[in-house]
Formats: sequence, C-alpha cells, structure tokens
Amino acid sequence: MADFELTSRENHPENTIIEVGGAKIGDGNLCIIAGPCSIESEEQIMRIAKAVKDAGAQMLRGGAFKPRTSPYTFQGLEDDGISYLVKAGHEVGLPVVSEITDASQLRLFDDVDIIQVGAKNMQNFGLLHVLGKTGKPILLKRGFGATYEEVLSSAEHIMAAGNDRVILCERGIRTFETYTRFTFDVSSIPSLKSLTHLPIIADPSHPAGRYELIEPLSLAAVAAGADGLIIEVHDRPDEALCDASQALKPDKFASIVEKAKGVKAAI
Amino acid sequence: MADFELTSRENHPENTIIEVGGAKIGDGNLCIIAGPCSIESEEQIMRIAKAVKDAGAQMLRGGAFKPRTSPYTFQGLEDDGISYLVKAGHEVGLPVVSEITDASQLRLFDDVDIIQVGAKNMQNFGLLHVLGKTGKPILLKRGFGATYEEVLSSAEHIMAAGNDRVILCERGIRTFETYTRFTFDVSSIPSLKSLTHLPIIADPSHPAGRYELIEPLSLAAVAAGADGLIIEVHDRPDEALCDASQALKPDKFASIVEKAKGVKAAI
Amino acid sequence: MADFELTSRENHPENTIIEVGGAKIGDGNLCIIAGPCSIESEEQIMRIAKAVKDAGAQMLRGGAFKPRTSPYTFQGLEDDGISYLVKAGHEVGLPVVSEITDASQLRLFDDVDIIQVGAKNMQNFGLLHVLGKTGKPILLKRGFGATYEEVLSSAEHIMAAGNDRVILCERGIRTFETYTRFTFDVSSIPSLKSLTHLPIIADPSHPAGRYELIEPLSLAAVAAGADGLIIEVHDRPDEALCDASQALKPDKFASIVEKAKGVKAAI
Amino acid sequence: MADFELTSRENHPENTIIEVGGAKIGDGNLCIIAGPCSIESEEQIMRIAKAVKDAGAQMLRGGAFKPRTSPYTFQGLEDDGISYLVKAGHEVGLPVVSEITDASQLRLFDDVDIIQVGAKNMQNFGLLHVLGKTGKPILLKRGFGATYEEVLSSAEHIMAAGNDRVILCERGIRTFETYTRFTFDVSSIPSLKSLTHLPIIADPSHPAGRYELIEPLSLAAVAAGADGLIIEVHDRPDEALCDASQALKPDKFASIVEKAKGVKAAI
Repeated sequence: MADFELTSRENHPENTIIEVGGAKIGDGNLCIIAGPCSIESEEQIMRIAKAVKDAGAQMLRGGAFKPRTSPYTFQGLEDDGISYLVKAGHEVGLPVVSEITDASQLRLFDDVDIIQVGAKNMQNFGLLHVLGKTGKPILLKRGFGATYEEVLSSAEHIMAAGNDRVILCERGIRTFETYTRFTFDVSSIPSLKSLTHLPIIADPSHPAGRYELIEPLSLAAVAAGADGLIIEVHDRPDEALCDASQALKPDKFASIVEKAKGVKAAI
Repeated sequence: MADFELTSRENHPENTIIEVGGAKIGDGNLCIIAGPCSIESEEQIMRIAKAVKDAGAQMLRGGAFKPRTSPYTFQGLEDDGISYLVKAGHEVGLPVVSEITDASQLRLFDDVDIIQVGAKNMQNFGLLHVLGKTGKPILLKRGFGATYEEVLSSAEHIMAAGNDRVILCERGIRTFETYTRFTFDVSSIPSLKSLTHLPIIADPSHPAGRYELIEPLSLAAVAAGADGLIIEVHDRPDEALCDASQALKPDKFASIVEKAKGVKAAI
Repeated sequence: MADFELTSRENHPENTIIEVGGAKIGDGNLCIIAGPCSIESEEQIMRIAKAVKDAGAQMLRGGAFKPRTSPYTFQGLEDDGISYLVKAGHEVGLPVVSEITDASQLRLFDDVDIIQVGAKNMQNFGLLHVLGKTGKPILLKRGFGATYEEVLSSAEHIMAAGNDRVILCERGIRTFETYTRFTFDVSSIPSLKSLTHLPIIADPSHPAGRYELIEPLSLAAVAAGADGLIIEVHDRPDEALCDASQALKPDKFASIVEKAKGVKAAI
Repeated sequence: MADFELTSRENHPENTIIEVGGAKIGDGNLCIIAGPCSIESEEQIMRIAKAVKDAGAQMLRGGAFKPRTSPYTFQGLEDDGISYLVKAGHEVGLPVVSEITDASQLRLFDDVDIIQVGAKNMQNFGLLHVLGKTGKPILLKRGFGATYEEVLSSAEHIMAAGNDRVILCERGIRTFETYTRFTFDVSSIPSLKSLTHLPIIADPSHPAGRYELIEPLSLAAVAAGADGLIIEVHDRPDEALCDASQALKPDKFASIVEKAKGVKAAI
C-alpha cells in the first residue's frame, strides 16, 4: 500500500476521529450537518441555522462559492456569504462547513470550521496541496466519476502535504440510471471503511435530486455504517436559489435525525 | 401511465401483498430468503435449509439451473436440484424459490413456490409471457444494465399475460467502480416503491461480491424500505461450486437477520 | 484461455470468414446489411429491399419478432413478417437476416440466411444452445451492459453447442451520456478483433438514436476495422412503426455506402 | 440556448477556426498534435520533437505539470519542462501545447501556444476564468464523467470571461468496460459539432491505454469528423516516466498520420 501510506487502514488500524467545536466525526457517534445549498442572505442563513439546530443538527453548512455548471446562474454570495455563515454559526452555537472552489479564497475561511472540497474539484491537486498546508479539517467529496482508489489518492495528496484531518464523503456517481440525479453508491461506505481509517459521511441530497428520497438514502447510509450525514435543508424551498427540488423542510429533517439515531442504535 | 397500466402505483395505490406458504411479501414485514447459490447435493441443501431456518429465514433459495457466463463451469444439477430443493423445503417447513432459465423447464417448477427470473433474462420476453400464464409468484430481478422503467416494463409483460403476482428485486448495476462486483443501487428501492405497488426486495450478495459487505448492504436495503432480502448462505464456503467469495456462513447470516429486524423497527 | 477455447484468436489465429449467399463476412471486404427496423407489410419490405439493393447493400434485414420493452407497442408481424422478408430477399437477390427472440420460433427461420440474437437475449443461454445446434450463421449482438469477455463467452456457448458460424456485433452500451441513445463503443471493434478470430460488424443505428449520427458512426466503425455494417433504412420514416427517429432514407444510405468504401480503402 | 449563448451553433452557425503558428484547427484540415506524455529532459523532448515533426505532426505536445492521481509518482519537470518544450518547439518549428493544472503556473505559459486544461480540471471554474482572461487558445478536455452539455458549459465559462479561442477534446469516459482504460465516445465528435461551432479534436491515447488501439481509434475519430488528433508519442517507450503502455513509437505514428489523411479525404 505504498500509494496509500497515510490513508490506508492497513498502516493505521485505528479509526481517525476528527473533533470540531463540540462535535466529533469518526467515532461511534453520528454527526449530522445541515443547512441550505446556498447562503442567500444574512437573514436566511440565520433562520435556517436556528431551525436545523432545533431539529438536531450538530453542524451548519452553507455554500458561498458555488461551482455552478453554467456561468449564468447564481454563483453564491462569496465573501459576504462566508461572513453570514460564520455569524449564524456563532449565534446558534454550531461549527460551520463551507465549500472552497479556488485557493485564492482561502483567507476568507479562517473562521470556517471545516473546509469542503466539492466533487468537481476532487482532483484539483493544486487546491488539495494548499489545503494540505492548513490545519483545517477537510471534507473531501468523491467525484461523480471517481473510484474508491481515486478518492483515497486525493486524500493522500492532502495528507502528504501535511494535513491529516480529512473526512471523506459519498455523494453519488454517474450511471445510466436517470431517475435519480446521481446513483448513491452506498457500498462505498463499508468499502472505504475497510480501506481507510478516515471517517466517511454521506450526502443524500445530491444523488436524490428529489426531496422524498432523502430520508431513505439517509437511513441507508447510516445502516451501512456512515459516520455522519450532510443534508440540504431549506425552510422555504420555493425561494431557494439552487437545488430547490432536493431541499428538505426542517420538520422533515427533524424526523430523519430521529430515525437515523434509531438505525444507528440497531446496527 | 398507459405503458404501466398494471404496475403503476398511480393506477393501484394499495401495496400488493404476496402470500406464499406462511410468508408474506409486501406488507410491513420483512421477508428473509436464504440458501446456497447452487444446490450441490441432496445432503448439502438439506443441511443449509436447516441452518437458515434456524437462523430466521422465512424462505429457502437454491439454484438448479445456473445461467453461467462460461459454458465450461458448473451449470447446476437441473431436475435433480429442483427435487432436492423441494424436499429440503418440505422437511424444514419453508417455501422455496428457484431460478428458471428457459421456458422448457417450467414443468419441473410445479412444487417450487416462487419462480425467479434472473438479471440476464429480465428482458427475455418469451419466458416472461410463459410465466405470465402461470399462477406462480414471480421474483423478477433487475437486469444489471436496466433502468427502473425497464424493470417495470418487464413486470408489465408478466402482468399483461395474466399473472399479477410479481416481486421486484434490486441486485446491483454495472458502473465504472470495480471494487464491488456490481454497484448496489439502493435508491431503486424507494424509487420503485413510489412508482409501483409491487413488493421490492434486495439481493445484497451479488453486488457485494465479497461476504464482508453483505451485512452493510442488507441493512442499507432494509433502511431504504425493502420488503425483504434474498441472501446467499453456505455453511462450507470453501466447497461452494459458485460465488464462493460472497457466500455467508449461517452464524453471520443469523446476526444480519437480527440487526435487520432492528433497523426495520427503527424506520 | 480455457474459457475461450473456441473463440480465442490465440487458439485460432486465422480470421474466420462466413459466406452467406454470395456475400462474405470476415474477409477484407465490407459487408453492408440494410433494411427496416420492422417488417410492416409485404409491400413495404419489397419496396425497401429494392431500394437498399440499389444503394449497394449486400444483405437485407428486417424484424418480424420485436423484443419491445413495453408489451403494448407493435411486436412485429411474426410468421407473416418472416415470409414477406424471405420473399423480398429472393425477389431482389439478397440473403436475409432476422432476429429470433424465442427458441419456439426456430422452425420459421428455415429460409432466413442469418439468425440474429438481439442485445436483450445475449445471455439467454437456452436460446444460444438451440442456435448452436443449427447450421445457420448467428449474428450475436453485444448486450448493452455486457463486457467484451461476456460477448465472447456467449459466442463460446453457441460454438460449444456445435455451431462455429458466429458474427459479433457492436451496438452501443449504456453510459451516463444521454444525448445518444447508447454510447457506441468503437474500441470494441479492434479489441474484439485482437481477442477473437470471429468477424465483427457494427450497428450504428441503435446507439445513434438520431439519423444524422448514423453516417459518422458508420464511417468510424469501418475506420476502426469493422467487417461490416447493419443499418436501419426506411423509405418513409414518418410511417415507421418503430425507431422512426433513427431510420435513414435510401439516398442517404447510398451515400454512406460510398463513403464507407472509401474509408475501407484508406486504412 | 441562453445557457450556451457563446458556444452554441444555433447562435453562431459558422465554424470557428483557430490559427496557431502556421497551423489551423477547425477548418477542413486535420491538425495532428504529438509528443510525449511528460517532458523528461531537454534531450528527450528535442529528440521526440524532431521525430514527430518528421512524421507529419503540426504541433508538439508535452506535459510539465502532471495531475497524477498519486502524490508519490513523477509530477513533471514543471518550470524546466516548459522551457525545454518551448525550446524544442522553436528548434523544429512547431507550435507547442502543454497542460496547466493551477492558475499560479500561468506566467510560465507565455511562450506556450495552446494551453491545455485536462479532464480532471474541466470543472475547475477558477482556473477556467483565469484562462478566459488570457488571449491564448485553450484546449479543453472533456472530463471522464462529464456530459456533452457540461463540456460546453465549461467552454462557455471560458468564453464568458472573454476568450473565444476554445478547442474541445474527446478523450474517453468512464464506463463498466475495463478492457480499455476509458471508453472512447466517438459519438461525441459529430454530436458536439452539431451543438457548437468550436473545433473538436480527439485524444486516442488515454482511452486506448494500450498502444495497439491508437491507430484504429485515431482513424475512427477522423472518420467521425474530428478536426484533429493529439497523440502520445515516445521514441523509447520502455523509459517513459508515465503512460508507457500507451506510448506510440514515431514510425507507427507516421503510419497513422498517412492513413488519417486518407480517411479524411474519403469522407
């Protein structure tokens, strides 16, 4: 496993646990991260932060830099978005997670607790190296065309650069089935857990593409051994500036949190 | 939904429940089907039948006609295999499931409780029409290159021929990821449940390809709403004539049954 | 290569040539097969037979048994269709190719020169064994979820049953790209030619899904070394009972034949 | 086509032609780009530059920044590599193409004629925006998990930032077939040509993964309408520091150039 010197379970049998604020990812607990796809205003993120906190979330997510396929759609509030997110996290007492899409944005992430690398940048090695020089936990999403070995290799890039706080995230792959937006590869969770000591969480929102599938995918991920979930929640889906069809309302989210705990206890 | 006149939930909002022997598939219960990939001898199937019954299975499976990719590998015990299976089922008091691969075999299936159509024959419409003329419940596996619509269309072929007792089964699809044998598409379970009133079970053995993944995939399927599981169990995996790497021992199977019940209760 | 005893080039370095009527498949020539997706009437197949003959086709194709995904669409003229096709072939002096979908149809294929096994039946081993007992050339289409090894294994099933006249056919695979109906895997042509001595032709119509792509895919297949093409041609696409969007008019087909000869000469 | 304002053929019916040095990409001619996967030394690139020039190449390629999956393999000669490439290009009189993997490298590309964006960075929008501010032609490779729409959207990002000199490149996608390294999607060439006015070339080396497939894939691409080819050539494949199995020797490359011209003439 020379190529996976730092990430392989063979070399590091103990599970890695990443602590952020009061939350832990990678131990026996289930870490639930929730929030809107995009931060749309200070008021919006504050409102949703309270709602997800009340519903049982342990971390708050929100996008300020959106790697949108088209250059003509909403690209995020950028600097202001990060400020609003950090403020909302402080206000409700939740650590915050946000996606970086370019190394030039790094200075803005000082108060962000976990920096996310999205699926489209999973093999943006320049960005991975810069993040490897920080002490921040990195949430690394699997690319939708990437194998397990490639996700691990990208984690290895971050760790080889000096940062051993990496969290993997399954978010679905491209297949011929088009009923769902992506095919949620639930097998990746136990497979990666046998290959690596790093924690693995699941994003059920992007593969689902439709909100009614988020509960079954969330529970399936937990049943398969996921260390956590990252779920898109919006209290006013009709107004959401992106991914409206997969936005979950807070009450539905609360119900998932309850059931997920039950499933976690059963396995 | 003219193309899905008989299978669509829109036209038939109530869940279909299929009763076989004492077991029910499609209601709130979880139906666990287990047994060896292939029936290898009278003694082998009898031994495994007892083991899976003790471990909590509600039906016994075993293959007598094996649609093997190569013409030079073990193709099954054929007529004798079916006899041994039926005898073992009677002995331990479990209904039996076995795969048909050609319409000419039908007369041998009189005492088989559920007739399985494998993934490779999902669009063998001649066979589907013949099965549509029987009164037997049909376990229809999704082809590894088939969409949800195509599975439903194949079920529609059976129902249009006169047989409304069809059970769907997710068993993994072909994708670029090769760590697992197939990619288990857990989303198919809630998706198909929203599209059709037919029961849906999961086969975690074939996509896993390796026995240690069968538990997490089984629990994920149940968490996602599956009406049952069909699992390959062998008490002497080293002697198995096919699919040895994914054969589960009875004690491990018993543990999955217990955990699956817990997950079912939690959701 | 024990699994590929009969199909492998390693064991049989010489190219197999299959002669049918005056046409040869598998030598240096290019064999062009053309005709409608479905035989719709005696008059229609006669009309198209003349048109494709004039345009340069060396064989006539036409479907009488259509393995349609939905049970409610046109399933073919069956017995009558075969009669009309054979009659048209005799009339214009072209050997004929038609698809069998069930072994029970075999007696109808006495005057059919090449029997086609469609993609959906590539692993219908019962059918392959029956065809292996005939002396007829078999046109075996690659399943849209099948690997090169699996196509060869299915050919091996036919040959192991006693029939060594097998022609392989690439017709596209399922991938995430939905702009085309299937992804035409042009690499399969040189890859299979290095693995086996059997001839390989290409069906550009099904992967294209739209008529304007048929010319570039045809020429690409020939450039990659295909021994022939099988193309859907209809003189009145607007009236076609199936696959209308990919039906090519005879004049366009004639132009492809000319260009294909030029490409063949260039390589 | 609002999302494809600048890239769509609907809005811009005329083919875009990109002139670089004496070479043209996008008109009726065929532009052949060749060179090693990686620049390994000044002597190596000079040697290969001469060889590909003699064999008929119109541009020289060579990688100095290699986005390798593993952090522990050869990552390229970086600054020195670019210098050697530029020098070799001047020496033999060929424009040069090289891949950029991070915006911070841009200042080194002043004398590089075409800047390549690799498949892994196709949706690295930060990089695309920076390249959109330059006046350099950009060779944009299709990601191996990207649809036609997504390639066009990435081109739209570059053009919306101000640079209308974009060349698209098909290099294979991820599918279930593992005999080839990637599945070369030859349909993308005519499909993209109907969707956009931008030139499209093909990279047969990466999908082939084995040198003997490069000729048939090259000729297939040209037959399908490609405006050019970019081929990995190495005079000493055994010494190649990356992608040795797909490295083509100069004499074999020369033969492809000749045949490609013949195919181009035939279509």
